[in-house]
Amino acid sequence: MTSKTPKDSFVIMNELVLPNDTNTLNNLMGGRLLHLMDIAAAISAQKHCNCIVVTASVDNVSFKQPIRLGDVVTIEAKVTRAFNTSMEVRLDVWAENIPSGTRIKSNEAYYTFVAVQKEGVATPVPSLVPETEEDHLLFEGALRRRQLRLILGGKMQPADATELKALFS
Amino acid sequence: MTSKTPKDSFVIMNELVLPNDTNTLNNLMGGRLLHLMDIAAAISAQKHCNCIVVTASVDNVSFKQPIRLGDVVTIEAKVTRAFNTSMEVRLDVWAENIPSGTRIKSNEAYYTFVAVQKEGVATPVPSLVPETEEDHLLFEGALRRRQLRLILGGKMQPADATELKALFS
Amino acid sequence: MTSKTPKDSFVIMNELVLPNDTNTLNNLMGGRLLHLMDIAAAISAQKHCNCIVVTASVDNVSFKQPIRLGDVVTIEAKVTRAFNTSMEVRLDVWAENIPSGTRIKSNEAYYTFVAVQKEGVATPVPSLVPETEEDHLLFEGALRRRQLRLILGGKMQPADATELKALFS
Amino acid sequence: MTSKTPKDSFVIMNELVLPNDTNTLNNLMGGRLLHLMDIAAAISAQKHCNCIVVTASVDNVSFKQPIRLGDVVTIEAKVTRAFNTSMEVRLDVWAENIPSGTRIKSNEAYYTFVAVQKEGVATPVPSLVPETEEDHLLFEGALRRRQLRLILGGKMQPADATELKALFS
Amino acid sequence: MTSKTPKDSFVIMNELVLPNDTNTLNNLMGGRLLHLMDIAAAISAQKHCNCIVVTASVDNVSFKQPIRLGDVVTIEAKVTRAFNTSMEVRLDVWAENIPSGTRIKSNEAYYTFVAVQKEGVATPVPSLVPETEEDHLLFEGALRRRQLRLILGGKMQPADATELKALFS
Amino acid sequence: MTSKTPKDSFVIMNELVLPNDTNTLNNLMGGRLLHLMDIAAAISAQKHCNCIVVTASVDNVSFKQPIRLGDVVTIEAKVTRAFNTSMEVRLDVWAENIPSGTRIKSNEAYYTFVAVQKEGVATPVPSLVPETEEDHLLFEGALRRRQLRLILGGKMQPADATELKALFS
Repeated sequence: MTSKTPKDSFVIMNELVLPNDTNTLNNLMGGRLLHLMDIAAAISAQKHCNCIVVTASVDNVSFKQPIRLGDVVTIEAKVTRAFNTSMEVRLDVWAENIPSGTRIKSNEAYYTFVAVQKEGVATPVPSLVPETEEDHLLFEGALRRRQLRLILGGKMQPADATELKALFS
Repeated sequence: MTSKTPKDSFVIMNELVLPNDTNTLNNLMGGRLLHLMDIAAAISAQKHCNCIVVTASVDNVSFKQPIRLGDVVTIEAKVTRAFNTSMEVRLDVWAENIPSGTRIKSNEAYYTFVAVQKEGVATPVPSLVPETEEDHLLFEGALRRRQLRLILGGKMQPADATELKALFS
Repeated sequence: MTSKTPKDSFVIMNELVLPNDTNTLNNLMGGRLLHLMDIAAAISAQKHCNCIVVTASVDNVSFKQPIRLGDVVTIEAKVTRAFNTSMEVRLDVWAENIPSGTRIKSNEAYYTFVAVQKEGVATPVPSLVPETEEDHLLFEGALRRRQLRLILGGKMQPADATELKALFS
Repeated sequence: MTSKTPKDSFVIMNELVLPNDTNTLNNLMGGRLLHLMDIAAAISAQKHCNCIVVTASVDNVSFKQPIRLGDVVTIEAKVTRAFNTSMEVRLDVWAENIPSGTRIKSNEAYYTFVAVQKEGVATPVPSLVPETEEDHLLFEGALRRRQLRLILGGKMQPADATELKALFS
Repeated sequence: MTSKTPKDSFVIMNELVLPNDTNTLNNLMGGRLLHLMDIAAAISAQKHCNCIVVTASVDNVSFKQPIRLGDVVTIEAKVTRAFNTSMEVRLDVWAENIPSGTRIKSNEAYYTFVAVQKEGVATPVPSLVPETEEDHLLFEGALRRRQLRLILGGKMQPADATELKALFS
Repeated sequence: MTSKTPKDSFVIMNELVLPNDTNTLNNLMGGRLLHLMDIAAAISAQKHCNCIVVTASVDNVSFKQPIRLGDVVTIEAKVTRAFNTSMEVRLDVWAENIPSGTRIKSNEAYYTFVAVQKEGVATPVPSLVPETEEDHLLFEGALRRRQLRLILGGKMQPADATELKALFS
């Protein structure tokens, strides 16, 4: 398997906020945005490993500002680091009200995916080689975020999370 | 405002996994589940504060086992702690294949919501009074999870997160 | 096959009324509610027989009061009586506007389902044993409602419907 | 208000059964069909009264044969009788698998609608004048079906339902 | 294969414009109408050839007047001419606002379909025999429209399009 | 109004083909693709004029190869020429089956949009200044395509279409 770069899995998705995506305030519902982000991230992970992928986790996502009915949501996704059979995908989300010319950064998020074969068995993925400075920062942070996921999933003791621990001292 | 108990905001949602909710392996897509969980959690938060709510954040969610087309997804939600204008909602998700009699715990998650008035301005919510032992555990853990959200959202320095810090020493 | 009680098939569904569920008055369309009720009832029937079920009929349903966009629809379903391969499910539907604190009883209805195997052939279901007083009332009324269904379906002469006939004299 | 004939409100709807309309047997779900029938019937009732209509009730509907994914559902609707502010609509439903050349009568049903103004207040509708022999049969049966609805809705004593009572003696 | 007439493939579809079909002006989006027209035309083509069909092309469609939320869209479709394995379908679309009693001709369009077997291989279709005068006009125009499609698809040189060429001199 | 370049309105949309988008052969339905293309093109036109836009027409679109369930559809859109109150948008569509590594050019198409104010009245748009060689080719072809639209819409006599006529001699 040839290794890949973040550029190889870069995906842009643009979506119009439709009535059924909104709550009674005419704002995009958070859960609907999480759904769109999952699809964008899954396409990105597929591009990295050229196989079927299933969502393994989503990290903490916060919603800062309302996105309105009729706004355009732009989601950019790329793989930041590959592990044995899994990949971390970074998402950047913007909301744009084109007629009024406003564009805000709505979210940043990390989803992880596992590569699987037809029967659902996990399968190895190519390694990721970071290129730009930003790529390297995301690549390194991926280890720390992974330790946090393992702790939150009850699969690692906080005391063993060397990378994370350093942050608190 | 009279305070409320977790029981007051307890909500059960049952959903059938339909074709459009699934990927090419015929499994429920993670993003679609996050969407359903957001709706269940929003109803629960509404019941606590009797007002309109908007999603503020979702904590780390991991997807352990595939949920199949035709399975029944059961989502239970209740408010665990109320802050000034926000509420943390705990979700427990099960997937059940009724004909084969299998039922698995699929996820546990925390969503937070902000109570708003018609114009979208944040508004105070009643306090939450835990009753059972489990209520108390969730109520206490809410502080720690909140610190983590603040750190991940860049609004708190790890060194100031007293509750969390204790975990790593 | 072990017999079951109504409690074994009790299902609660909570749904948010979304824009696409509504008419130009911003009220939930009757047909959309019948669709949601069918899903809740099907899950309940599945729980009783632990097999795939198909809708056999819906009894007269009347819609008394409008349900608004953004309201929460709560559907409770349970099996009231099992026949050879079919089950009657009772539904109670409430509509709640949480911010304004109003909650109304919207509908009561009966759906019947046939249990089937993979190939669609009808298959026997466990018998139902009523427990509470309400269970017994519903269990007894089921015979009368069944006669009405058979008459309306052209499979029974009114003169043979002993249970129903008694009502009119 | 000029009176209308059943022909004036006659509506044909053709729908393709899509994946999300089906259960795990790849058959159209009963609830989804009830939803489509409600839309067809509402269009028909609108044509009779030229105003907004809301579903008041659906009479007993039974589902005799499975309708498959990819089949074409044909729904024909027409008003059978107008009361003060309400209308009864008769529906005939066929399912056709065009490639295999099979076409079956799937359902017959009656929905009733109330005509309303913008604010949701009931408003009078034109009377219906039956033309064909079939029109007259449906027009007369409408009284009997109405008595049944009133009894089932708890608004009439069986003993007072003169039309219906005659059937049982 | 017995030949067919346009009447044999005549299909009427009535659809209610729902919130999710509309843009921020509450008007039906053009793309959604193209989607509905494709379904109506596909049913018509299926009726002509009694087999599965796939969309081969849509000719120029223009949208003259806005169609509003809550309007009824009526689509009439019929096959105008059959070629070896393909069929041209003519569509007439009306939009009706029933409460206000306005009905406008919204579009005229031509879709073409290819008849295929289960594996997706093209298969011959019955010939079409025009009956009415209008049928004959549509039948003849079909050749000219086909030449235009071939030119626009880069499969024919304008100089070879005898039928079309005549129009410009 | 400052003029714009095609780059200013360039939009990329990536979409996963879901079950409800497909026919019984598990292929994306043509009408659903036309719907997605309309949304991508509308976003592009909005970016050019910074106002609300409504679809005015779609030119001939042909569908050459099937797109499968689970494939990723990539739509690229950009404005090619601005007229007084309208814009022509060029679309390029690819379908990619990522696991098998196949990517095909699926369609090329032109949609036109009219810029409107809140009340739906047409409003002037900035002019478009082509930059690259491809931009210039598309810009020039736009006149010819416009004549064809006017002829097909019955608003121009073929004899007056100087640009088009040249093609046929």
